[in-house]
Amino acid sequence: MAQTPLITLTTDFGTTDGYVGTMKGVILGIVPDARLVDLSHEVAPRDVRGAAYVLYAAYPFFPSHTVHLVVVDPGVGSARRPIALRTPAGFFVGPDNGVFSYVMACEPLEASAVLADPCYRLPRISHTFHGRDVFAPAAAHLAAGVPITDLGPPVADPVVFPPPRLEIASRGIVGEVLHVDRFGNVVTSVGELIWAGDDLAFRPAFGKARGGTQDAEHGIVAADTAVEMAGQEVAGVRRTYAEVEPGEMLALVGSSGHLEIAVREGSAAERLGVRPGDKVVLRF
Amino acid sequence: MAQTPLITLTTDFGTTDGYVGTMKGVILGIVPDARLVDLSHEVAPRDVRGAAYVLYAAYPFFPSHTVHLVVVDPGVGSARRPIALRTPAGFFVGPDNGVFSYVMACEPLEASAVLADPCYRLPRISHTFHGRDVFAPAAAHLAAGVPITDLGPPVADPVVFPPPRLEIASRGIVGEVLHVDRFGNVVTSVGELIWAGDDLAFRPAFGKARGGTQDAEHGIVAADTAVEMAGQEVAGVRRTYAEVEPGEMLALVGSSGHLEIAVREGSAAERLGVRPGDKVVLRF
Amino acid sequence: MAQTPLITLTTDFGTTDGYVGTMKGVILGIVPDARLVDLSHEVAPRDVRGAAYVLYAAYPFFPSHTVHLVVVDPGVGSARRPIALRTPAGFFVGPDNGVFSYVMACEPLEASAVLADPCYRLPRISHTFHGRDVFAPAAAHLAAGVPITDLGPPVADPVVFPPPRLEIASRGIVGEVLHVDRFGNVVTSVGELIWAGDDLAFRPAFGKARGGTQDAEHGIVAADTAVEMAGQEVAGVRRTYAEVEPGEMLALVGSSGHLEIAVREGSAAERLGVRPGDKVVLRF
Repeated sequence: MAQTPLITLTTDFGTTDGYVGTMKGVILGIVPDARLVDLSHEVAPRDVRGAAYVLYAAYPFFPSHTVHLVVVDPGVGSARRPIALRTPAGFFVGPDNGVFSYVMACEPLEASAVLADPCYRLPRISHTFHGRDVFAPAAAHLAAGVPITDLGPPVADPVVFPPPRLEIASRGIVGEVLHVDRFGNVVTSVGELIWAGDDLAFRPAFGKARGGTQDAEHGIVAADTAVEMAGQEVAGVRRTYAEVEPGEMLALVGSSGHLEIAVREGSAAERLGVRPGDKVVLRF
Repeated sequence: MAQTPLITLTTDFGTTDGYVGTMKGVILGIVPDARLVDLSHEVAPRDVRGAAYVLYAAYPFFPSHTVHLVVVDPGVGSARRPIALRTPAGFFVGPDNGVFSYVMACEPLEASAVLADPCYRLPRISHTFHGRDVFAPAAAHLAAGVPITDLGPPVADPVVFPPPRLEIASRGIVGEVLHVDRFGNVVTSVGELIWAGDDLAFRPAFGKARGGTQDAEHGIVAADTAVEMAGQEVAGVRRTYAEVEPGEMLALVGSSGHLEIAVREGSAAERLGVRPGDKVVLRF
Repeated sequence: MAQTPLITLTTDFGTTDGYVGTMKGVILGIVPDARLVDLSHEVAPRDVRGAAYVLYAAYPFFPSHTVHLVVVDPGVGSARRPIALRTPAGFFVGPDNGVFSYVMACEPLEASAVLADPCYRLPRISHTFHGRDVFAPAAAHLAAGVPITDLGPPVADPVVFPPPRLEIASRGIVGEVLHVDRFGNVVTSVGELIWAGDDLAFRPAFGKARGGTQDAEHGIVAADTAVEMAGQEVAGVRRTYAEVEPGEMLALVGSSGHLEIAVREGSAAERLGVRPGDKVVLRF
């Protein structure tokens, strides 16, 4: 591989204990010229869906030879399989627990491997830190150009969890809260939305939305629609925070193309008291 | 550019959501061999002055070809301009909201650009994440050697906020709290102070201090002067923590050459209850 | 040195203030192609033993040309010496305050230096930030291939703190809590333990355990032994979290080969109310 090897890391390890640094030591021992980029190590402990979202929002902005290493692994040491996936948008390495579900809803799977070959693991495998002993070496070898098929047999039926709620009804689109970010912005499953003049073009983000017709699925939504969440109604989808006063709530198309609820210079999540999974309605 | 491209990143994004990693993906897609250094992503949300201080304390220690990328951008999506500045001490990329004020008080401006040329942005620009879509690409292209003048027209009148309070009176120097660090050390605007034997040489840190004479401005301050803050008085400026007992308060010249108030093995900020902007007096 | 220069950083600086980034600027000014890996910057302020543990768990997984830079330095500005050590497992740079005690209990010392030569420091040395002015330059020069003997005279009697409690009695092994990680897992001094079939081979982790016979020291421990901590008893040492139900406490061999107490999908440290230094007994 002529490109500079590039590996991203996403874990629930935090940055206090040195676990992430240890994985990087293993990687750089195998591929000394690798570039390493942290996506997040503050995924809530064991929050596989949270990690899936972080990866989903970030991976499209990386070169297509990037290896994305994700270790949010509540089943470490159990029978859950360690896997690697190859797509046109990059490689993905981690436990087979659904953490790649959102990526797989967007990218075709070209090849895959259960990480079975001991040549591509550390010599001694602990029972509790496969990030270091199994996943980091696999990511490093992939970044160094080892073909994915060398790592082990293909993955039959990788674990995929149900896509986030996204239903198209006659009177609107029903979705759910996907993520609350550091600023208290509430990212929903309602996307992908793209500004088309003064209206919004809608394309279901995670494969085919349920309940919809072809027209609605690739349809146009008026930007002056109402958004309902947690019993509150926000009128209209705005382009920027600057269109409302500080402290005011607004709906807008976030940076990942999803409908977001925000408070300018404040926290919408706190104001609304919502969490991932809570319902949102974009009402026509 | 023969040097290894080097880019620092300072934001208020936190490290939970993957926003910073996404910017790095964009950068490495443009300049694969760039070195990336995080200054801070824990700037308080929308705290432009806080970011300005972090940058001010760090940039002198980087090579002069470094590109410093700062995204603390409460006006994202509004009319505020995205800009790049070139100085003898490095390049600076970010929103035109005053975040480079402290740097510009210390470094001559050689060239500048409003980031207007679409060739040096991502193809699709979101309304809420110019860090990813506008600033990261500009920083990457600058680091790769693109002349700053290619990015857009020069910046007329970049936003600069008033320098921190620093007044020289007959009986002392009046300043303000600039920053409280992780240890609770209170960094003030009173600087730059340099030990000269047993006395302190004083040179106004941010251009010309108000109210002073030429002598006072580049003068000598006795180290046994008194420091007043929040109604407490600390006698003398010490060289090191070790000169007082654990738990005792002291004044000293901090690592950026500014007067600091600290408690050995404790938090001066907590003890004094002070915040940025609060008054400090170095009394002759 | 033909290898890519590689430096790890461990501090108690946090990541809010830009101190770590500043050290990286100094390093990259000296050795532009260095790879930099953060182990932890969230060591508790002035917690030298905490830093020693983070380093101890991570360094074996790095290439042997790595320079490990540690700045947890409550004595900065006092007479404590700045030092560098060379071992077969890497270089270590930091204050002479015991922070390398655990490493030195495991690795032979090949060479050492008090960082006295001004050529390998910044031109101006602050009294409060030797991480930037003394330690970062030394680490950079070592990574660039400067012989350790050039940095200064050898270190006579480096400070070493007493090893963690680890006593072998007729009825069991008595140790102490070494570390509590992000997940609330309680890492003890009882190690190194290695699974040997259904039993555990025991080899004292920090040199020679006190009170033991040769047999016991390199002996075999039945895995169905009992573990006592904070008045609670856990029956048996398990291989993985998956062997108990969620919320249940278990003992297992952690990723560093030490006995750990954990709660599946919970925090053992919170459940037990233990802290570093608290007693643990592995009862035969």
